Amino acid sequence: MSATAGKTITCKAAVCWGAGEPLKIEEVEVAPPKAHEVRIHILYTGICHTDEYTRSGKDPEGIFPVILGHEGGGIVESVGEGVTSVAVGDHAIPLYTAECGECKFCKSGKTNLCGKVRATQGRGLMPDETVRFTCKGKPIYHFMGTSTFSQYTVVADVSVVAVNPKASLEKVCLLGCGITTAWGAVVKQPGPGVAGCTVAVFGCGAIGLGVINTSKLVGASRIIAVDTNPGKESWAKKFGATDFVNPSNLQGEKIQDYLIKITDGGLDFTFDCTGNVHVMRAALEACHKGWGVSTIIGVAAAGQEISTRPFQLVTGRTWRGTAFGGVKGRTELPGLVEDYLNGKVKIDEFVTHRRALGELNDGFHDMHTGECIRCVVNMQD
Amino acid sequence: MSATAGKTITCKAAVCWGAGEPLKIEEVEVAPPKAHEVRIHILYTGICHTDEYTRSGKDPEGIFPVILGHEGGGIVESVGEGVTSVAVGDHAIPLYTAECGECKFCKSGKTNLCGKVRATQGRGLMPDETVRFTCKGKPIYHFMGTSTFSQYTVVADVSVVAVNPKASLEKVCLLGCGITTAWGAVVKQPGPGVAGCTVAVFGCGAIGLGVINTSKLVGASRIIAVDTNPGKESWAKKFGATDFVNPSNLQGEKIQDYLIKITDGGLDFTFDCTGNVHVMRAALEACHKGWGVSTIIGVAAAGQEISTRPFQLVTGRTWRGTAFGGVKGRTELPGLVEDYLNGKVKIDEFVTHRRALGELNDGFHDMHTGECIRCVVNMQD
Repeated sequence: MSATAGKTITCKAAVCWGAGEPLKIEEVEVAPPKAHEVRIHILYTGICHTDEYTRSGKDPEGIFPVILGHEGGGIVESVGEGVTSVAVGDHAIPLYTAECGECKFCKSGKTNLCGKVRATQGRGLMPDETVRFTCKGKPIYHFMGTSTFSQYTVVADVSVVAVNPKASLEKVCLLGCGITTAWGAVVKQPGPGVAGCTVAVFGCGAIGLGVINTSKLVGASRIIAVDTNPGKESWAKKFGATDFVNPSNLQGEKIQDYLIKITDGGLDFTFDCTGNVHVMRAALEACHKGWGVSTIIGVAAAGQEISTRPFQLVTGRTWRGTAFGGVKGRTELPGLVEDYLNGKVKIDEFVTHRRALGELNDGFHDMHTGECIRCVVNMQD
Repeated sequence: MSATAGKTITCKAAVCWGAGEPLKIEEVEVAPPKAHEVRIHILYTGICHTDEYTRSGKDPEGIFPVILGHEGGGIVESVGEGVTSVAVGDHAIPLYTAECGECKFCKSGKTNLCGKVRATQGRGLMPDETVRFTCKGKPIYHFMGTSTFSQYTVVADVSVVAVNPKASLEKVCLLGCGITTAWGAVVKQPGPGVAGCTVAVFGCGAIGLGVINTSKLVGASRIIAVDTNPGKESWAKKFGATDFVNPSNLQGEKIQDYLIKITDGGLDFTFDCTGNVHVMRAALEACHKGWGVSTIIGVAAAGQEISTRPFQLVTGRTWRGTAFGGVKGRTELPGLVEDYLNGKVKIDEFVTHRRALGELNDGFHDMHTGECIRCVVNMQD
């Protein structure tokens, strides 16, 4: 039992007061966890494009004021009544994709999209329809059920997993989103999967590099990285790409046509890691006729739509997508942490930038430079 | 050896002289089969919307003058040099989806889309880049490698399969396209498949009814038929539908929203059997989040595109398509004929109209009435 258990904690957090506004470091009050809730002392958090999407105001479902952040690592400070899956002192990763094990989705064995806290999470609330954050007397909304841009956060017990404390939280916090998403998108590909196959990866940010890395891990025979930023070539090859193509250098030839040409008919698997709907189409159409499978990982801006000729599907291509890589966080993240400790899954290599909590806005700027793969924020600084 | 072997045969055929023109019954000359070709005495043929699509001039790849038809049954009259897979006298079904067994596609084990004769077939030619039909001194193009609207036709030996002669060709000719397509779209669904699952079928023509029938055969728990023609309700239920929904009666509610509502979250599998790109979207969006799979079977008009929000895929729906149901004709059609003879696969029930060769244009008209499931043409009348 920690000294703070049952009490409101005052700590620092980055609050976004309105759509499009920069984050502001504030003192916030974090109420103790209610039944089936967990309060976590967040030590590190990554910054992801989804945070920026909501901050920018482009996300029509964005709710303000809010504490963003969904790629965090910390230590369980206290637990509410009925919590059995984690204990005080556990090293923990908050999960924006919950896993209750009891709902129709969890029981189906076909998806990681738990339905338990989805509705309240989407409205910035805890499952009891209230919030645990206040700042200057005002309630502050939660974000993605995680809100890791706070030194302390409260999450539902179905939305957190304990992991091996030997793993540095400064690194495994990144398993809270990007790296896990990329890993799952490849490893949990249905059917015989990616082993021995050809792969194209559109976009070489953290997700794209993770897909490249995992494709190599499972034995893809050829991995073509595609990015308009020439600086990404060395990154892509470092993570396992066999080829790098810059669509800007194709003199007007469509990227899908070029890829079909150099692969004798197209790729077995393609992955969109850009969130750009035009790239999603190119990724589908670069698939081999008869069997190619294209997976959408990137999140598109509101209102944008994907399109193609139905002939592309009728002639045997499959269009699918994945959220959090299809990974069930509570069941599978501990194993991924072990894989990291055993050297199977790369994490350290993704971290190009480090920031203090007070520099969170600079971290967002880092993300836009194209030089940054992942920026990890030390929440204690 | 038949008396006509090696000689040009003069017979009747329905020729389409130009885009949008009605078919004209003509005397045509059918040259003998060259090496690896087979000449078939066509006894019966179905009429399919794809024939009408090309006849109408809407198909940008249509080539004229042409002999249409791709759902035929007949008897092998003679074979060219090197033909070993069928013999004179065999009951045979021409295949618009060839199966050579040797190309990259056939060997992949992942698709039925053989590449062997694809390029020439698409240009209305036999594999040696010439045609076997002439009429009034003019060469007449082949169609889909089959041209079953002629009393005699010549096909590549990879584009024909011999079937059990106990089966009436008047019936099993329909396995040349629609019924097989529907069967394969359900039976060859990847993964655990349709057994025990919920299904929605958009469009209750021959393909849609075939999908309903096959879904019932494999044990779907609920089969919802969707059609704007109220007359299709009794047909759909006769073939195994448990529910019938007419989207015109929903007072503005979108069909996908209605289906999601009445199925507690959406369908496990949906099938578009309309060729309408808006219906294809509805079919995808009626799928259950997390695992629903939508299959496009219908052929859309040239230039039309499907679209949806990528969120639909990212939250676990899969969009795929199928051509000829994914069925490898030479390998699998004999088994389907046996299934028909054993009463497992319905065919007789699809035949609502019968026409003589001279009435082929009336057969096209029948197809448009909405009362017709399949019209079979007796080529000898």
